[in-house]
Amino acid sequence: MIQVGIVGATGYGGVELIRLILGHPNAKLSKISSVSFEGKRISEVYPSLIGACDDVLVSQEEVIKASDVVFAALPHGLSQPLAKACMDAGKVFIDFGADFRLESESEYETWYGAPFDYPELHKIAVYGLCELARENIKGARLIANPGCYPTSIQLGLAPALKNGLCSAKGIVIDSKSGATGAGRSLSQTTHFCDLDEGFAPYKVAAHRHTPEIEQGLSKLAGEKVTVTFVPHLLPLKRGIISTMYTESNVSLETAYEAYCKFYENEPFVTVLPLGMAANLKNVCMTNQCHISLHRDEHAGRLIVVSAIDNMVKGAAGQAVQNMNIVFGLPETTGLTLVAPAF
Amino acid sequence: MIQVGIVGATGYGGVELIRLILGHPNAKLSKISSVSFEGKRISEVYPSLIGACDDVLVSQEEVIKASDVVFAALPHGLSQPLAKACMDAGKVFIDFGADFRLESESEYETWYGAPFDYPELHKIAVYGLCELARENIKGARLIANPGCYPTSIQLGLAPALKNGLCSAKGIVIDSKSGATGAGRSLSQTTHFCDLDEGFAPYKVAAHRHTPEIEQGLSKLAGEKVTVTFVPHLLPLKRGIISTMYTESNVSLETAYEAYCKFYENEPFVTVLPLGMAANLKNVCMTNQCHISLHRDEHAGRLIVVSAIDNMVKGAAGQAVQNMNIVFGLPETTGLTLVAPAF
Amino acid sequence: MIQVGIVGATGYGGVELIRLILGHPNAKLSKISSVSFEGKRISEVYPSLIGACDDVLVSQEEVIKASDVVFAALPHGLSQPLAKACMDAGKVFIDFGADFRLESESEYETWYGAPFDYPELHKIAVYGLCELARENIKGARLIANPGCYPTSIQLGLAPALKNGLCSAKGIVIDSKSGATGAGRSLSQTTHFCDLDEGFAPYKVAAHRHTPEIEQGLSKLAGEKVTVTFVPHLLPLKRGIISTMYTESNVSLETAYEAYCKFYENEPFVTVLPLGMAANLKNVCMTNQCHISLHRDEHAGRLIVVSAIDNMVKGAAGQAVQNMNIVFGLPETTGLTLVAPAF
Amino acid sequence: MIQVGIVGATGYGGVELIRLILGHPNAKLSKISSVSFEGKRISEVYPSLIGACDDVLVSQEEVIKASDVVFAALPHGLSQPLAKACMDAGKVFIDFGADFRLESESEYETWYGAPFDYPELHKIAVYGLCELARENIKGARLIANPGCYPTSIQLGLAPALKNGLCSAKGIVIDSKSGATGAGRSLSQTTHFCDLDEGFAPYKVAAHRHTPEIEQGLSKLAGEKVTVTFVPHLLPLKRGIISTMYTESNVSLETAYEAYCKFYENEPFVTVLPLGMAANLKNVCMTNQCHISLHRDEHAGRLIVVSAIDNMVKGAAGQAVQNMNIVFGLPETTGLTLVAPAF
Repeated sequence: MIQVGIVGATGYGGVELIRLILGHPNAKLSKISSVSFEGKRISEVYPSLIGACDDVLVSQEEVIKASDVVFAALPHGLSQPLAKACMDAGKVFIDFGADFRLESESEYETWYGAPFDYPELHKIAVYGLCELARENIKGARLIANPGCYPTSIQLGLAPALKNGLCSAKGIVIDSKSGATGAGRSLSQTTHFCDLDEGFAPYKVAAHRHTPEIEQGLSKLAGEKVTVTFVPHLLPLKRGIISTMYTESNVSLETAYEAYCKFYENEPFVTVLPLGMAANLKNVCMTNQCHISLHRDEHAGRLIVVSAIDNMVKGAAGQAVQNMNIVFGLPETTGLTLVAPAF
Repeated sequence: MIQVGIVGATGYGGVELIRLILGHPNAKLSKISSVSFEGKRISEVYPSLIGACDDVLVSQEEVIKASDVVFAALPHGLSQPLAKACMDAGKVFIDFGADFRLESESEYETWYGAPFDYPELHKIAVYGLCELARENIKGARLIANPGCYPTSIQLGLAPALKNGLCSAKGIVIDSKSGATGAGRSLSQTTHFCDLDEGFAPYKVAAHRHTPEIEQGLSKLAGEKVTVTFVPHLLPLKRGIISTMYTESNVSLETAYEAYCKFYENEPFVTVLPLGMAANLKNVCMTNQCHISLHRDEHAGRLIVVSAIDNMVKGAAGQAVQNMNIVFGLPETTGLTLVAPAF
Repeated sequence: MIQVGIVGATGYGGVELIRLILGHPNAKLSKISSVSFEGKRISEVYPSLIGACDDVLVSQEEVIKASDVVFAALPHGLSQPLAKACMDAGKVFIDFGADFRLESESEYETWYGAPFDYPELHKIAVYGLCELARENIKGARLIANPGCYPTSIQLGLAPALKNGLCSAKGIVIDSKSGATGAGRSLSQTTHFCDLDEGFAPYKVAAHRHTPEIEQGLSKLAGEKVTVTFVPHLLPLKRGIISTMYTESNVSLETAYEAYCKFYENEPFVTVLPLGMAANLKNVCMTNQCHISLHRDEHAGRLIVVSAIDNMVKGAAGQAVQNMNIVFGLPETTGLTLVAPAF
Repeated sequence: MIQVGIVGATGYGGVELIRLILGHPNAKLSKISSVSFEGKRISEVYPSLIGACDDVLVSQEEVIKASDVVFAALPHGLSQPLAKACMDAGKVFIDFGADFRLESESEYETWYGAPFDYPELHKIAVYGLCELARENIKGARLIANPGCYPTSIQLGLAPALKNGLCSAKGIVIDSKSGATGAGRSLSQTTHFCDLDEGFAPYKVAAHRHTPEIEQGLSKLAGEKVTVTFVPHLLPLKRGIISTMYTESNVSLETAYEAYCKFYENEPFVTVLPLGMAANLKNVCMTNQCHISLHRDEHAGRLIVVSAIDNMVKGAAGQAVQNMNIVFGLPETTGLTLVAPAF
């Protein structure tokens, strides 16, 4: 059994990971920590866990010591010293945050306001988008779990960009996320009476996931890709859906075949039959990504819609998938989740 | 592996059962049927099942033949002939409907407008509220899976009535259900724009679950119990919560101890610490029942709040629990579900 | 034109009052104040008001000076000195809070932890449940606007208690409120991901509105009334519905006639035709109270369901109704609101 | 008083119009009709109207006879004969449907499958997007009220296209609508359990509003405009928001000034301060359109977000605005609605 530790366990990513690990046949929770709730039981914070996990929240140090792999869900900047400590202690480290996602230090500095703490760690860090970087992940000890928006977007556009089915220029990405993406912290935006029956974009063309998206798409396209990315906040809890607009001359059938082939052996990516549209509810509670393809013939566009559960494939589920790869388990171990029909 | 067949698989109870059976280590789906969708794949009706279950819906006869146990989710009246066929074929039959829940034929006739079709089957039918009827269920071949409201209510009041902690007279039950309780069929009441941001009671003191509730509570109390039962429809999908008002002289601490003792070995019933209130979201997607106890000293009442997921403990989950008992498996097999924190 | 000032204008009650005053033909906003947002425009806090009301939030003193009537929506305890200042300045004062609702100082101290600040003011304060206290309100200068729960409950039970249609003993009140009742302040309970798809009771048999409810019902019944009152929080924004269980021997038709007669001249109370159930969505955005009557013959109960918009009839609308009475206007002035059908 | 008749009054557009007319100082309901509910009171269909409007639904002929202006909310194809009857009877006719929106008969035939019934009526029909066609509307007797998506889109892009602030090529429009847009008819898509917590696009690049959008934008741009238009269905009731992506070289400040100037005298269009993003909840229940401007400098795009209430500015409100213009009333008469803050 892999001993799994979680630092920042009371955040939404952390508590979702607990749920997944409790159902994982080859892993068990070792210790979990939280700065805000140290000394309390996790089930006092989340009564949904009563009886299922009543572990007491301890310190970060205890987590590291007790674990084979440490997952961290921390505010940006805080993962770097923790990663250092894990590497020094010979542990595997999987980070839910952004600290190790960007290869370019200057991009990181632009968006996060500080240079890298330990440049040598960034050299060994692997970007853990499993379907696209499986081989790199196998030998990794420090993994940057991708962001939720970037996961939905890269999976959605990878077959098109890799196969030259669309132009790498002029891509527009209109994404919509459930409120769990904003986390457990209170804010006016996620106050019930503010969000319920409301809908708006936020951080228009200014979201921190933009450089991560462009980094990933550029690799896929083999050229510098610049996108317009606008996230919106949905009045629901879970899920991200991205509607992506590309310039393309290929027929829908050609695109569909290429997508099916690209993902034919992937257990977590489903290319929906032509005529269907991806809906985020159909992937909720699972590690699945649903992709639907559409063509606007009169405007010459291929439109790709990609839906994931932001807390599973966009966070805790993909983190478990990464762990499975690192520890040599079948990728689907503990992740054979079926979406509820409602 | 137990071969599991489902008749009426495209209803909400049926499709939730599919989800549970897919995760059950000792059971597998044999065949599933639906009158409305025969010949289609279940995943065409519920895209959430794409890749997880793409079985084609067949006829009722094929289901019976291929299965060790047949679950039925049918409109009332239709389960009786199916039960007969299953008994004749030597299969176990577990009914989601009301056909076999009432012991009194005259009560059945009053509420459902017809006499029993096969009175001899009603003699062997067992009412499958697992925590209260486990011994009867063990040898049963025909099980009436309890209704969702009656499950939440009987579990909530059993310790009080069994131990004489409250009066059997004057009980008021105010229940609230999510919209899945009304099923997949379209209706004005469950049209999104009618239900969203709305809330109302329905079938006030006239709901068909009333005789089932009173039958169960009367057994527990050892005397005829008459309740006032008012259900309400919540603008959310899953869960039932019942707030139950009883006349009582015992202290909250005494009641709490009695409840804890009553359920001390029950994996699916949690008596919440005093001071907490049950919330239906904390049992969603699980077979759990959360019970909280409260005292209104100045009015001399013990108030019990009981929450379940109407589609799991109130339907498909309890049905699986019944199957586990019948087939000699540990009761929790396939039901160790953890509620999502959000 | 009546000059209307609002102290605490950025709270939910305050901003709803602004909306109503903007549509009132005989009143206009003079000045509005807020401690937290002084110096800002109200439309910066609520962009829904852009163009409709861009007034700058000023100090409490400026509000008093500029107004004929001052409405206050303040945390409990703070209305008493403000009322004093208004009385000294010869203004009418209408309080959204609880400071002047209870006649008994000892009850007030029990629930709010402090004695009355100005006992002489409590002697002139009038409890402003318009339908039941119209004559007292006419000459009043200091009005305690009733609480939202107490409004729905007293209107619902008044005809029954006044006419002896039910027992004054053993009344059970199960109420459900939308999230606006908890106000604009951030809390875990009203965090979107906590409340959405969730439902639970709170402050079970311990809510501060209990003494106000019992004070009102006792007057109606002419004897001391003790109720069991349990509020619940709904995952929606507006509205309160109370399901009230009484012991009664009268027929439904008799009760219905008495209710219709009791409210025959009331523009804001509608007794629904027998067979219908009150739904809070049908009174949203209006000053209406919908009442439906139901009988549980087998348990000997009359069940009354009463629905209001907690922010209108339960707060700002009733406050305007009080103002209309005090200033000699037709009660419906500025309150002829039609509920949206969706 | 203008005598207002409504044909198809029980549809969502019709019942919202009733609400507006009830608050209109210079208009009153004459007669209302419905094929499905003829002979019933409208308040039996919509209990929100009890006491406010208990009119009985009559025949179409009675409506025409009793009215100065007839509004119709009918399935496409049915408005043309009704318009003919109204013209013959000397009435003003305002159509909520699509029958008279497209100037090109071949476009109409392509999207609606039939030629024009009365080509001469199409010559006198005026497209009633008030802010852009006010002068034409003044003398009109047959008005095609614009579609909800086209209203939000044309208002959002008009200043940019008119002033050449963006390219007329390559525009991408990602729209999201509340469920009222799908109307009162039951459908699986708008079944509560299907839509709640779900989100998906529909009719991707194939929505019937596309030719109406392109017709309008082409006029504004002075050249043929081809757009990519993808609508999505939101799990909420009211509102449409369109996020529109244009290629542009002008600075945000320049665009902002041009937008402010373009709409400086428009009571129903608000250009939000730079830095804010339009949110559909802030225009709910009003005839307002909120527009926010954003720039993606690195991709060279001007992004325009436009929000309206689909049932008011997108249907009944704009219809009243058209009526006001035709009858020489100030445009805001009966439309000075303030959005609720929650």
